[in-house]
Amino acid sequence: MIALDAFGGDRAPEEILAGALLAHRQGVPVVLVGNAEKLRGKVPHGLTVVHAAEQVQMDEPATTPLRKKPDSSIRRIFELVRDKQATAAVTCGHSGAAMACALHVLGPVPGVTRPPLATVVPRRDGGQLVLLDLGANVDCKADVLVQFAVLGDAYARAVLRIDRPRVGLLANGEERGKGNEQVRQAWQLLEAMSVQERGHPGTTGLHFVGNIEPLQAMRGECDVLVCDGFVGNVMLKTVEGTVEVVARILKEEILRRGSDRFAAWLLSGAWRRFRQRTTYDNIGGALLLGVNGVAVVGHGRADARAVASALRFAHSCVQAGLVPQLRTQVGSRLVKG
Amino acid sequence: MIALDAFGGDRAPEEILAGALLAHRQGVPVVLVGNAEKLRGKVPHGLTVVHAAEQVQMDEPATTPLRKKPDSSIRRIFELVRDKQATAAVTCGHSGAAMACALHVLGPVPGVTRPPLATVVPRRDGGQLVLLDLGANVDCKADVLVQFAVLGDAYARAVLRIDRPRVGLLANGEERGKGNEQVRQAWQLLEAMSVQERGHPGTTGLHFVGNIEPLQAMRGECDVLVCDGFVGNVMLKTVEGTVEVVARILKEEILRRGSDRFAAWLLSGAWRRFRQRTTYDNIGGALLLGVNGVAVVGHGRADARAVASALRFAHSCVQAGLVPQLRTQVGSRLVKG
Repeated sequence: MIALDAFGGDRAPEEILAGALLAHRQGVPVVLVGNAEKLRGKVPHGLTVVHAAEQVQMDEPATTPLRKKPDSSIRRIFELVRDKQATAAVTCGHSGAAMACALHVLGPVPGVTRPPLATVVPRRDGGQLVLLDLGANVDCKADVLVQFAVLGDAYARAVLRIDRPRVGLLANGEERGKGNEQVRQAWQLLEAMSVQERGHPGTTGLHFVGNIEPLQAMRGECDVLVCDGFVGNVMLKTVEGTVEVVARILKEEILRRGSDRFAAWLLSGAWRRFRQRTTYDNIGGALLLGVNGVAVVGHGRADARAVASALRFAHSCVQAGLVPQLRTQVGSRLVKG
Repeated sequence: MIALDAFGGDRAPEEILAGALLAHRQGVPVVLVGNAEKLRGKVPHGLTVVHAAEQVQMDEPATTPLRKKPDSSIRRIFELVRDKQATAAVTCGHSGAAMACALHVLGPVPGVTRPPLATVVPRRDGGQLVLLDLGANVDCKADVLVQFAVLGDAYARAVLRIDRPRVGLLANGEERGKGNEQVRQAWQLLEAMSVQERGHPGTTGLHFVGNIEPLQAMRGECDVLVCDGFVGNVMLKTVEGTVEVVARILKEEILRRGSDRFAAWLLSGAWRRFRQRTTYDNIGGALLLGVNGVAVVGHGRADARAVASALRFAHSCVQAGLVPQLRTQVGSRLVKG
């Protein structure tokens, strides 16, 4: 059962409930978490509710569910995971509060000090790119970037079933020595880890491919792209912004001439499929990687389709056995002695 | 006269010469700089050559023109500016070497310690966004980000003729307190500068608008966007990569059905205009801001059209009187005592 925060997100609870139903029909087991009274008469047939009286608003501090609202839905979903009553927690609510609850309630996997937010974006070659950190940790020293690399590698192996994922460091150039101070240090640590693991025949060690630029990553030169949360957040939002600007420019140019408008009408199917492939509704949100449980934070503006994506994303992590595999890999690579 | 490095860029000298001719016909005064013997018989009618025997290759160290090739074309263009024989220097060659030469030969404007690379990108609202640093300085402390803000502001006033440019700090959220450590510190310094200048009635002080996210900047919430060279480079290359991926996805979806292919054929004019607006050929390259002269570094893969853009970009800076205005503004804001 995946515990879904019914009161998280700008369009809660209506779109959340609709998304839960969508995912339920696709075979994803969901349990709604939220104020049962407020949900009365609204819960779709076949879904059940776990009561949590309180609700955290977007403008409250991230610590609210921990300090002031112990019975809030955004906290309860993680407690259900901790108590083995749910296999994963999903919320489209306050992302800071979600991270604080996940970390406090579930705790980090031993060896991880700063769990990152990760997501999977489509590449030009048709493959998938694991991108992390998306914003959980804005200031990262080199050892934290190494944690991200190990976590991203474990995710790609467990969930994407890639044998030996190519792990790259996001940088401003591919040559050794490029990157800012933290990236240059992380390069050395990851290169050393990679070389050391190559020394053990028969193992599938870390496949570090060095510095990777954004264009090269999008073209398919790596499977996992590591950066600090500041840069990752800027990169993700730049992609969103560029898609928006590009779509706008294209529309303007198409609407400039009558015959183009006719052609555009003929093209509307292709355009719809294009928008589907380029909206973030299909990505499913961000996974907080490195805590003892599957924790997914969806987009605050999520509609039913996006909520269903987030639920499927969480479900795929559960089915792949992500957390036990993370613990094993992180344990062998990051826990000393 | 704008001094153009005839032997800088992957397609030099052919595309460089063709670009020089294009700009020359558009009324931009150009002088070619390079090995006169190698150029013999190739120089378009109406253009002259200043001889520089040597050429710096892309795989040589950035210091090569300063240490080993004193008569290289990439160095000579800046010497012509220094000696008042040219008004600006343009190269599509080794960008590290270009920056080293510009800084060494022209020297920084007093008050500037780390000249940034700046460019102007189109916004969704039809306006223009000055983005800096694009990669000249990967590790920047807060005071360096403040220099970038003052330089970007001066550029927007002088060249784009914006009265009181809105200057933003690139961050992962708009609220105060967002950003990494350097950004948070720069926020405070810029806010203080902005408040202090507001105190002098009649002046048009720095208009600092705080933290800005990429999407908001692209939509038009600021005129100048400040970040360190690592983040700026990642952002610029993410835009390039996203445009490429988006165009590819759209093509795939269009080619999926026969009727769509017909529609696409009808749309080819709109598509061509779209590609023109979204390729970087029209942007003109990057300006090294804060040295005593106009120094433009074009794209290494520049074709004739892109070379002409870079020349027009440099020309617009000269005509606007950029450097004297920079000196005044930087002098009053950054030079202590």
